[in-house]
Amino acid sequence: MKKTVRNRSGKTVSESNVEMVEVVLPNDANPLGNILGGKVMHLIDIAGAIVAHRHTRKVVVTVSVDNLDFLHPIRVGQLIILRAQITRAFRTSVEVAVKVYLEDLLTGERRQTSSAFVTYVALDSEGRPVEVPQVIPVTPDEKYEYRQALVRRRHRLAAAARAHRRYFEKQMPK
Amino acid sequence: MKKTVRNRSGKTVSESNVEMVEVVLPNDANPLGNILGGKVMHLIDIAGAIVAHRHTRKVVVTVSVDNLDFLHPIRVGQLIILRAQITRAFRTSVEVAVKVYLEDLLTGERRQTSSAFVTYVALDSEGRPVEVPQVIPVTPDEKYEYRQALVRRRHRLAAAARAHRRYFEKQMPK
Amino acid sequence: MKKTVRNRSGKTVSESNVEMVEVVLPNDANPLGNILGGKVMHLIDIAGAIVAHRHTRKVVVTVSVDNLDFLHPIRVGQLIILRAQITRAFRTSVEVAVKVYLEDLLTGERRQTSSAFVTYVALDSEGRPVEVPQVIPVTPDEKYEYRQALVRRRHRLAAAARAHRRYFEKQMPK
Amino acid sequence: MKKTVRNRSGKTVSESNVEMVEVVLPNDANPLGNILGGKVMHLIDIAGAIVAHRHTRKVVVTVSVDNLDFLHPIRVGQLIILRAQITRAFRTSVEVAVKVYLEDLLTGERRQTSSAFVTYVALDSEGRPVEVPQVIPVTPDEKYEYRQALVRRRHRLAAAARAHRRYFEKQMPK
Amino acid sequence: MKKTVRNRSGKTVSESNVEMVEVVLPNDANPLGNILGGKVMHLIDIAGAIVAHRHTRKVVVTVSVDNLDFLHPIRVGQLIILRAQITRAFRTSVEVAVKVYLEDLLTGERRQTSSAFVTYVALDSEGRPVEVPQVIPVTPDEKYEYRQALVRRRHRLAAAARAHRRYFEKQMPK
Amino acid sequence: MKKTVRNRSGKTVSESNVEMVEVVLPNDANPLGNILGGKVMHLIDIAGAIVAHRHTRKVVVTVSVDNLDFLHPIRVGQLIILRAQITRAFRTSVEVAVKVYLEDLLTGERRQTSSAFVTYVALDSEGRPVEVPQVIPVTPDEKYEYRQALVRRRHRLAAAARAHRRYFEKQMPK
Repeated sequence: MKKTVRNRSGKTVSESNVEMVEVVLPNDANPLGNILGGKVMHLIDIAGAIVAHRHTRKVVVTVSVDNLDFLHPIRVGQLIILRAQITRAFRTSVEVAVKVYLEDLLTGERRQTSSAFVTYVALDSEGRPVEVPQVIPVTPDEKYEYRQALVRRRHRLAAAARAHRRYFEKQMPK
Repeated sequence: MKKTVRNRSGKTVSESNVEMVEVVLPNDANPLGNILGGKVMHLIDIAGAIVAHRHTRKVVVTVSVDNLDFLHPIRVGQLIILRAQITRAFRTSVEVAVKVYLEDLLTGERRQTSSAFVTYVALDSEGRPVEVPQVIPVTPDEKYEYRQALVRRRHRLAAAARAHRRYFEKQMPK
Repeated sequence: MKKTVRNRSGKTVSESNVEMVEVVLPNDANPLGNILGGKVMHLIDIAGAIVAHRHTRKVVVTVSVDNLDFLHPIRVGQLIILRAQITRAFRTSVEVAVKVYLEDLLTGERRQTSSAFVTYVALDSEGRPVEVPQVIPVTPDEKYEYRQALVRRRHRLAAAARAHRRYFEKQMPK
Repeated sequence: MKKTVRNRSGKTVSESNVEMVEVVLPNDANPLGNILGGKVMHLIDIAGAIVAHRHTRKVVVTVSVDNLDFLHPIRVGQLIILRAQITRAFRTSVEVAVKVYLEDLLTGERRQTSSAFVTYVALDSEGRPVEVPQVIPVTPDEKYEYRQALVRRRHRLAAAARAHRRYFEKQMPK
Repeated sequence: MKKTVRNRSGKTVSESNVEMVEVVLPNDANPLGNILGGKVMHLIDIAGAIVAHRHTRKVVVTVSVDNLDFLHPIRVGQLIILRAQITRAFRTSVEVAVKVYLEDLLTGERRQTSSAFVTYVALDSEGRPVEVPQVIPVTPDEKYEYRQALVRRRHRLAAAARAHRRYFEKQMPK
Repeated sequence: MKKTVRNRSGKTVSESNVEMVEVVLPNDANPLGNILGGKVMHLIDIAGAIVAHRHTRKVVVTVSVDNLDFLHPIRVGQLIILRAQITRAFRTSVEVAVKVYLEDLLTGERRQTSSAFVTYVALDSEGRPVEVPQVIPVTPDEKYEYRQALVRRRHRLAAAARAHRRYFEKQMPK
C-alpha cells in the first residue's frame, strides 16, 4: 500500500517534458520535397512516449491520438522540432500534448506546424495496466490543460465508441 | 474546360483502393515486443496517400488525421495489413478510410486493430491546391461512408478551429 | 498421425496470395533515379515469404530463386506492386510465383517489370524441415503453374548441382 | 573512334573486383535469427554493381540474376562477406560472379553460403546502352569463367524468352 | 561591408544550443545489447551540426572530432540524450561541445557517457568557406570553454599535421 | 592455463584486417550532396570493430576514438572505402587503424579522406574485460605502428584524464 501511495503522490509537468529535434532527410519527403505526414506522426508518438515513460517509469503503449492537423509543410533540410509535455494522468493512462515546429536552418524562421494529444497506458512486466503517478500542474497553462484534458477524454471516449460500434461488428472479409 | 469536366467526372472507390502488408520487425517495437503506435500511424499515412494519389493522379499532402485508437497490440513477427479506400472527394481534398489488421503467421488469427480517416489535399506542380475528381460510391457501405464523410468534415473543421485558436496565438518560446 | 493427415490435406492458392505496394524512395535508387535491382529482389523475397508463411503456418527460409529479369526501370516516386501466389508444395518446401509491376502515380500507367519463382522450406521450432500442406489448384492458370512447377524444380536441382560442384570443391582463400 | 578503341581495349578481372563485409543485424533476420534471403540478394546486387561500375566507369542497371541458392543460414551477429568479380563483358553488358560467405566472429568459422551470376547493362547519361571495355582473363579460373559466361548467357536468354512469352501476353488485371 | 560587420557582431551560446533525445533500438546495438560506438558518434555529429547551423545560418561540414571516450554502455530501451553548445567561432569555423548522457526509462537513472568537441566549417552555396558570427560567452562556464577552445585548436592542428604527414605521403595501393 | 597461453601467443595483422565498401546514398548526405561526418564515423567504428572481433574472437566495445579529420568531401553516388587493421593489443584492449578513401565510380579517381585510431575492449559473456591475443607485426609499416601505438596510448590516457576531470565533477542539470 505504501507503494501505491507513493506512486499516486504526483510529479510536476516539467519533470517529464522533452524536446526532440531532427533534420528532415530526402527519404522522409514526397516528390515536392515536403516531409510526409506519416513521418511527423511517427515522431509525435516517440516524443509523447518518452514523456509518458518519464512520468510513469513503466513500459507504455499508445492507445489513441486525437485529431491532428498539418498546417505548414516542413521541407527537406529544415529542422523538425517536437515539444512534448504531460497534461494529466488518469488511473492507468496519461495524456501528453505534443507541439511540432519547423525551423529553417538558413533563415532561422520558426513556426508551429501541428499540435497533438496522445494517450498512453502504462503496463507492468506482464503487460497488464498499472496505476500511474498524478500530474501536479503548476503554471496557469498547465492548469488550463489539466482541466481541458478531462473534456478531451470525454470526447475521445464518445468518438471511439461511435467508431468501433460500426467497424467492429464486421469481420475482416478475405 | 474539357479537362476540368473530365477531372470532375468521378471515379469509383474500387479504382483507387489499396492493400499493404508488412512483417513487424524488431526495430519497430517497444521492449515488450509490440509495434510502436507511431509506426502504425506512419503506415496508415502511406496507405492513405497511395489511395489519394490514385484517385487524383496528383501529388498529395496530408492535412489531417481524425481520432485514432489502437485496440490490440501487433507483435514482432506478425503481419500488419492495411486496407485503404476513398470515401469522398471535396473540391481540392479527399478523405480516405484506412483499416489496420494484424495476422499471426503461425496461427492464422486475424483481427482489426485500428481504423483511421485521413484527409489529403491535391497539389499542382507549383504546390497550389487543385480540383480533384468526384467519388462515385457504389455499394451500400460506400454510400454510407460517403454521407458520413460530410459529418466528419464538419466535426473536423470545428475541432481544428478550437485547437488552433488557443495554440497559435502564442509564439514559440525559446 | 491425425495432424499429418490434416497438414497434407491441402489449401487453395487464393488462401495465401498477397499483394504488396510501396513508393520508391530516393535511397532505393541509382543516380539516374531508377530503383536498384537488389531492392526489387528484397521485396520479391518478402512477398514470397508471406505467401509461404500463410500456406504453411510455419517459419520459412528461402532456399532458391530462379532466373530473374528486370525488364523496365521503376523510378523514384512511382509505385512498385508485387503479387505473389503459391504454385505447388513439395514435401517440406513450396514454390511461390512473384510478379512485379510499376504504377506511375501521375499517369496511372502500369506494366509488369519482373517475374520470379522463389522456393522456401518450412521449419519447426528447432529449425528442422517439416511437412507442408498440399496446394489445390483451381483455375486453369493455377493448374498450368502447378504442372510447370515440377519442370522448374527439375531444372533447378540440375542447375544447382552443376553450380555447386564447381564452387564448393574450393576452400575460401584468405 | 580513338575512344571506342580505348574503351574496347580491355581491363583485367582484378582491376574491378570487390569485397564487402557486413554484420547481420536483428532487422535483417527472421524470428529464428537467420538473415532473410532478400537481404542477401540485396547485398549481392550491390557488390555486383560496384564491380560493373568499376569495369565500365558508367552508370549500370541490373538486367538479370541467374538461379541462386541459399545453402547455409547466416545468423544475427555473424558476418556476411561478399566477393564479386567480373567474368566477361558483352557489347553493352557485363556478367559478374558474386560469392557469399558467412564468418562467425567468435569461432572464426567460415563457409560459402551462395554464389550468383548477375548481369548489368552500362548506360550513358541519357539512359541509353553504351559499349563497355573487354575483360582480359589472366588466371586459369578467370579463363574458365570467361568461357562459361558464354554458355550461361545462352541459357539465360533462352530461359528469359520462355518466361516472358507466357507472362507478358497477359495484362495486369485490376 | 555592412553584412560582414553584422555577421561578425556575434551571438550568444544559448541562441544556438540543442538537446536531442532518442530511444536505443535493437539495430543500434551489439549482441550484448549495448549501443554501438559508431551510432553514438553519428548522433554527436548531428547534434553538433545543428548547433553550427543555428549559429552560422549556413551549410556546414564536419572537419574534425577530438579524442572521444565511451565511459558507460547505453543499453537497448534506454534513452540517449545529447546536449550540444557552441564554444567559440574562428574565422570560418566553429567548435561545438557535445555531451552524451544515458537515461534509464524505468529507474530514471542518468549519467554522462561521453563528451566531444567537433569542428565545423561554414560554406556558401558554391561550397567555399565563409565568415561566421563571433560567439559571445556569458556564463563563467562559457567563458572557460571559450578560452580553452583556443588551446584545443592548437593541439588539434598539431595532431593533424603529425597524422597527415605520415599517412598522406603514401598512395592508396590497389 | 593452456588456453591463456594460446590466447596470448599472438596473431599477425593480416589475419584480421578488413576492407569495406559502400555507395553513398542521398539520406547520408547534407544539402550540398556531401556525406555527413557522422556517417563516416559510424562506418569507421564498424570496420574497426570487425577487426577487433576477428583478432580477439570476443564481443568488443568501443572505448575511444582519437582525433579524426575529414580532409575531402565524399559525394552521393561515390564509393566510400574503409581499410582497417590492428596495430597493437594491450592486456584486454586493441588499437585499430582505419583509413577512409573515396572512389569516384565514373572517373575512377581515388583519394584518402580520413584516418582514425579506435580502441576496443574485449568482453566475456558476462560483460567483463578479458585477455586478448598479442599482435605480431611483420612488415616495417606494421612494426612502426606497433611502436607508435604505445605513444598514442599514453597521449590518449592523458587527454582522457584532463577531459573527464572537468566534465564529470558536474552533475547533469535538469
